[in-house]
Amino acid sequence: MSLNDEMLAMGRAARDAAEVLRSVSADQRTAAIRAMADAIRTHSAAIVEANTRDVADATSHIDRLMLDKDRVEAIAAAIDLVAGLPDPIGEEMARWTRPNGLEISRVRTPIGVIGMIYESRPNVTADAAAISLRAGNSIILRSGSDALRSSLAIHRALVEGLEEAGLPVAAVQIVTTPDREAVGQMLSGLDGTIDLIIPRGGKTLVDRVNRDARVPVLGHLEGVCHTYVHASAEPEMAADIVRNAKLRRVSICGATETLLIDREAAPDLLPLIADHLEGCELRGDEASRRIMPIAPATEADWRAEYLAPILAVRTVDGVDEAVEHIGRYGTGHTEAIVAEDAIAAERFLDKVDSAIVMWNASTQFADGGEFGFGAEIGIATGRLHARGPVGPEQLTSFKYVVRGNGQLRP
Amino acid sequence: MSLNDEMLAMGRAARDAAEVLRSVSADQRTAAIRAMADAIRTHSAAIVEANTRDVADATSHIDRLMLDKDRVEAIAAAIDLVAGLPDPIGEEMARWTRPNGLEISRVRTPIGVIGMIYESRPNVTADAAAISLRAGNSIILRSGSDALRSSLAIHRALVEGLEEAGLPVAAVQIVTTPDREAVGQMLSGLDGTIDLIIPRGGKTLVDRVNRDARVPVLGHLEGVCHTYVHASAEPEMAADIVRNAKLRRVSICGATETLLIDREAAPDLLPLIADHLEGCELRGDEASRRIMPIAPATEADWRAEYLAPILAVRTVDGVDEAVEHIGRYGTGHTEAIVAEDAIAAERFLDKVDSAIVMWNASTQFADGGEFGFGAEIGIATGRLHARGPVGPEQLTSFKYVVRGNGQLRP
Repeated sequence: MSLNDEMLAMGRAARDAAEVLRSVSADQRTAAIRAMADAIRTHSAAIVEANTRDVADATSHIDRLMLDKDRVEAIAAAIDLVAGLPDPIGEEMARWTRPNGLEISRVRTPIGVIGMIYESRPNVTADAAAISLRAGNSIILRSGSDALRSSLAIHRALVEGLEEAGLPVAAVQIVTTPDREAVGQMLSGLDGTIDLIIPRGGKTLVDRVNRDARVPVLGHLEGVCHTYVHASAEPEMAADIVRNAKLRRVSICGATETLLIDREAAPDLLPLIADHLEGCELRGDEASRRIMPIAPATEADWRAEYLAPILAVRTVDGVDEAVEHIGRYGTGHTEAIVAEDAIAAERFLDKVDSAIVMWNASTQFADGGEFGFGAEIGIATGRLHARGPVGPEQLTSFKYVVRGNGQLRP
Repeated sequence: MSLNDEMLAMGRAARDAAEVLRSVSADQRTAAIRAMADAIRTHSAAIVEANTRDVADATSHIDRLMLDKDRVEAIAAAIDLVAGLPDPIGEEMARWTRPNGLEISRVRTPIGVIGMIYESRPNVTADAAAISLRAGNSIILRSGSDALRSSLAIHRALVEGLEEAGLPVAAVQIVTTPDREAVGQMLSGLDGTIDLIIPRGGKTLVDRVNRDARVPVLGHLEGVCHTYVHASAEPEMAADIVRNAKLRRVSICGATETLLIDREAAPDLLPLIADHLEGCELRGDEASRRIMPIAPATEADWRAEYLAPILAVRTVDGVDEAVEHIGRYGTGHTEAIVAEDAIAAERFLDKVDSAIVMWNASTQFADGGEFGFGAEIGIATGRLHARGPVGPEQLTSFKYVVRGNGQLRP
């Protein structure tokens, strides 16, 4: 069978599975998700072994790629968490009665078939499958080739869970070849069987998806996140937040990549902040380099998602210049202001058009779990359908159900 | 200036206008919408005159195209209605506090720039502009060529209203050429300036949009709507509903195009229903033609959006066959069941995956106004972002605003 035929068959199987998922009970979906977590635990050694081979071949992002026994347990625990989330399907989101007696309700439904195209982190394989199933969708996974062996091992466990719970195994499928042509076929929609593509990865991937997709895309741009330290910031709070936002984990999309700092306060604040950033390379504009002996930043640094202990530093003249910098270089993900001046802070929160805007908190809180969504498969940076953390609720649609007793429209 | 340069300039102007709209007050948006309605009234004669020339050249859909003084007044009244709707921007949709003290709120924002590509009805020009402005978006309109003179005349009035209210005239722009290349350029996104394309028209247009769009699309498929008369239906109610659903206005997208009827009940019910459909041509399958001497339906009839006094008739064996027919031939718009049997009705409401499903009511209620949304620019038939009637609220996005006091992520 050609790759094309194989992919089309996957699409049809996913569509058929979605029809089944739509009609099974919430309890059945929950049982399947729990069984998936159990199977991950059962096959922990095999998953770590497959991952070892991925890691041996890897040249970058080792931290994101690497799995050990504890990380596999964390994957299983994350699936269990999704099993415990309320099932969104069938939820009545709203109900009202019209003057003519028509009763209208808005009821949550699955979307159908999700196509997930992602890079690096193998845990996405499990997270995406569990969250998609929680929302009654089937999913076709396309793992990055550097994590393919890990992802395939995880997928084998997930399928075992589905089988055990009596749900169609095509509810969670994975592309087994690293051939990039498979991505192109997913983007074509597989003959109308894919309802939504979710890309998660670097700029090259996302650009390709946006250029070639023939189906709706829930965009997950890279996170070029900013922390802006206003002149009114409490210095110790600013230094703590910047350290946490940059260094807590450098490889997540909510990590701050650029520090914006008010010019008037920079001579005092920048050295203090730098003091808190041990082991982090700073790259600054001219004004900040007059304050401290740091490397020069180039235009490329303002656009860089380092995912590494590097921080670009730029001085700005107040909120509006910070907002402008973010508008030009940001990816619409998460930006924070550190300020005691409430008027400045509210102006920042209002003017910055990103999925998440924060005041006096670390950008690393940009996370579905931290938001109380229980789980997420990423942070949507577009403005359609879902924005910010994407959990089960964000992977649903709805329909209007209208109940009457013979009403005719005048 | 080439068409391409002209379109790109429109895109940039729309983006700049969207920035302004985002920051003006709800009252200013309201004042502008009211001024648009007033200007439509002032220029009523000029609009009718322009429409007369469109109608003179038209070969079809005259009813949808034609404007007289009363219909222009109805357009102005519809704009006034939008002015009276609550302004959605800045609305706090939800707010919660996390255990660590972070206060998270979800706040409604505009989407940005809408591209609206539509056919025939000139009132869409006014409706789309008013609803888009209510939601803080700017809009680029691309009218069908058969209504272009009417649309341009309406647009001139709308711009006068914007000027009077001191809002940027680029908040509502219209493509002045009938050149179809302009559509292609809009679908390319005009260098990233268009956030969302809304097509409204026939299958050819929607297919082209889905094939060529490089930006998100809020799909408005044609409405091949079904009314299914179950064996348990109260006969007079069934006949009244089918008549209303088919004949109240044959040219709207919520008009029923196919009647599905239970085989066992058809010998009694079909003649009664036909009696109520004076002036309507019936085209039936074999079983229905054994009951009544009507024209034969072909495969094409099951897919036809007649927008005319023609009704396709098919007999089915119960709910599941009706659901299957709708799944195969429907466009996901609106479907109704007429039944006294609540179990059958609930099964239909559950199984049919259309934007709107109805029980004992006319499909012609598929309308934002009838739903209580105040206004609509169409019925979305996709499953992403918005589904069903699209009013101001459906043309918004949101962002998360997080307020802390120095929280660090553990």
